[in-house]
Amino acid sequence: MVCVCPNIPVYNNSEMKGRYYEEFEINVKTGESNLTQIYLKEGLDFISQQAVAQRPFFLYWAPDATHAPVYASKRFLGKSQRGRYGDAMMELDDSIGQILAHLVSLGIHNKTLVFFTSDNGAAVMSGPLQSGSNGPFLCGKETTFEGGMREPAIAWWPGRIPAGTVSYQLGSVMDLFTTSLSVAGVLPPDDRVIDGLDLSPVLFNNSLLDRPIFYYRGNQLMAVRIGQYKAHYWTWSNSWEEFNKGINFCPGQEVPGVTTHTQEEHTMQPLIFHLGQDPGERYPISVESKEYRDVLRRVTAVVEQHQKDLIPGMPQLNMCDLAVMNWSPPGCEQLGKCLKAPESNPWKCDWPH
Amino acid sequence: MVCVCPNIPVYNNSEMKGRYYEEFEINVKTGESNLTQIYLKEGLDFISQQAVAQRPFFLYWAPDATHAPVYASKRFLGKSQRGRYGDAMMELDDSIGQILAHLVSLGIHNKTLVFFTSDNGAAVMSGPLQSGSNGPFLCGKETTFEGGMREPAIAWWPGRIPAGTVSYQLGSVMDLFTTSLSVAGVLPPDDRVIDGLDLSPVLFNNSLLDRPIFYYRGNQLMAVRIGQYKAHYWTWSNSWEEFNKGINFCPGQEVPGVTTHTQEEHTMQPLIFHLGQDPGERYPISVESKEYRDVLRRVTAVVEQHQKDLIPGMPQLNMCDLAVMNWSPPGCEQLGKCLKAPESNPWKCDWPH
Repeated sequence: MVCVCPNIPVYNNSEMKGRYYEEFEINVKTGESNLTQIYLKEGLDFISQQAVAQRPFFLYWAPDATHAPVYASKRFLGKSQRGRYGDAMMELDDSIGQILAHLVSLGIHNKTLVFFTSDNGAAVMSGPLQSGSNGPFLCGKETTFEGGMREPAIAWWPGRIPAGTVSYQLGSVMDLFTTSLSVAGVLPPDDRVIDGLDLSPVLFNNSLLDRPIFYYRGNQLMAVRIGQYKAHYWTWSNSWEEFNKGINFCPGQEVPGVTTHTQEEHTMQPLIFHLGQDPGERYPISVESKEYRDVLRRVTAVVEQHQKDLIPGMPQLNMCDLAVMNWSPPGCEQLGKCLKAPESNPWKCDWPH
Repeated sequence: MVCVCPNIPVYNNSEMKGRYYEEFEINVKTGESNLTQIYLKEGLDFISQQAVAQRPFFLYWAPDATHAPVYASKRFLGKSQRGRYGDAMMELDDSIGQILAHLVSLGIHNKTLVFFTSDNGAAVMSGPLQSGSNGPFLCGKETTFEGGMREPAIAWWPGRIPAGTVSYQLGSVMDLFTTSLSVAGVLPPDDRVIDGLDLSPVLFNNSLLDRPIFYYRGNQLMAVRIGQYKAHYWTWSNSWEEFNKGINFCPGQEVPGVTTHTQEEHTMQPLIFHLGQDPGERYPISVESKEYRDVLRRVTAVVEQHQKDLIPGMPQLNMCDLAVMNWSPPGCEQLGKCLKAPESNPWKCDWPH
């Protein structure tokens, strides 16, 4: 069977507006595409409409220019010091500047929270043209090392958040759900456990909430962070099979015993790093040290509590099925772009990325 | 023979004021020392004296808190998010802030150029407590990879240099000699070749001077940078002998064929990287590509010109001699701290760091 995958669909809310390379041109060779400008116009227009109607709004503006295939529009191509990835970043920066300026020009900046972050670290396995850099952090996207998981974030709300404030709060994108509800004055549903924390005290009072962060890959708890410490219960970069094909999630950053190509269990004696002193996860703390024993005791209690409280959901990423790809997304009829899906034939994937 | 090395002397101009651990306390275990505060007071007092006397001045303020043994004073110890190295950095930052504020309070900020930079990248071979981080750059101090050589710099001169200006100019600390003379309105001596460029046009007009940078180790030309490209003619991190003792200049950053432990010659076919697309020097440009051939042609011309123009000096770092260590620096008599030097017995060191 020859598998032809559907091209990536572009949505506005839950409706497909077209697909990569079809309705939305991307020149993979040169990296030129005006897709970010299209997203920008959609975002600005949406904000204008809500402002005119004096409606409160939630905009999830999710540009993908730094995701392979990395692209930028003509005005930005070749303009950065950092290759095609840098060009894409420059266009995102410019676009976000335009969104902020638009909020100011509409006079709604004093009642709008803007939160900027990424869902994962830069991919570093795509060669020099399409790869980002995670600076001092280990490996990249797909992994549970810091390069794959740790993201900076910027919160902007003139009049509510003092400019230049720095926070060391640990957070996760799950917190944005809870925080958005809180900011909008809405209570979260009380019929389920909500994992996200309300970050309002952090944003508005620079409070520091003591909370752990759990690093999962599929439904496997790989690592836990408490404060400056991170304990790895499992390590894995990618399989030898993938690695030997030239796919490397940690190019030039192999740390023996850490960036392993087999799924290594350390649950009896986790690898513990102090991310303040060792942001690159290169020097595990000696298991003989008092520091190790103290941290292990604290982190063990946190993990036990987590596992006791956890109500496991159905893993959505452990099963692979060609039928669930975007063959016929909502909106495809209108465009005449529905594709026939293959029959459902799910198989278990081994810890897929 | 048991070799007892003299402790590091602390100088004020060319006079020793004492030695590490003797006159100047540094607790190697806790990392506590008030040495940066002593340097700071000296600097501030010197500036005050010149301002009062209305004398022009040149201050080379060279704190060493981030050099092993890394130290910070009590007020900063344990205060950063980045271990002892971060504490030292925080104290330097605070000290430089005080120097700038002092210039402002004396009203001489509008006629003072402040230039902040480092002579090399952070050492990364000293374990998590004493190591810095060179972010996305390869390896650290001692090497000719970007982590060892590339440094940011900040120039400050209110009224002459607009705040927030960014320059991509390549420079070297040798330029500071020429630039300082230029700013002071003094002509450099004309009886010798001066390697440093006058960076005034860069500082005051944001000009961009097209110039190569040569990376030496001892008297061996290791690499050359032109624009965004860097060509390695030789690669070497450190020897197997040193490496096998646990000294690693590129911990967790081995790039096969690049961070070599033998001195590898590539003069016939240099490794070429595009530092914009590949700041970590991980993906050599294919020697089969047109890009490679174009860059090689340009860089070859630059190297040939350089070697034609070069008047070699006597290498000062290729000979080792215990007798030239700081046994009896000027000022030692006054302190009663002169040590008897061993007899001079120079030997050739192999590309010492």
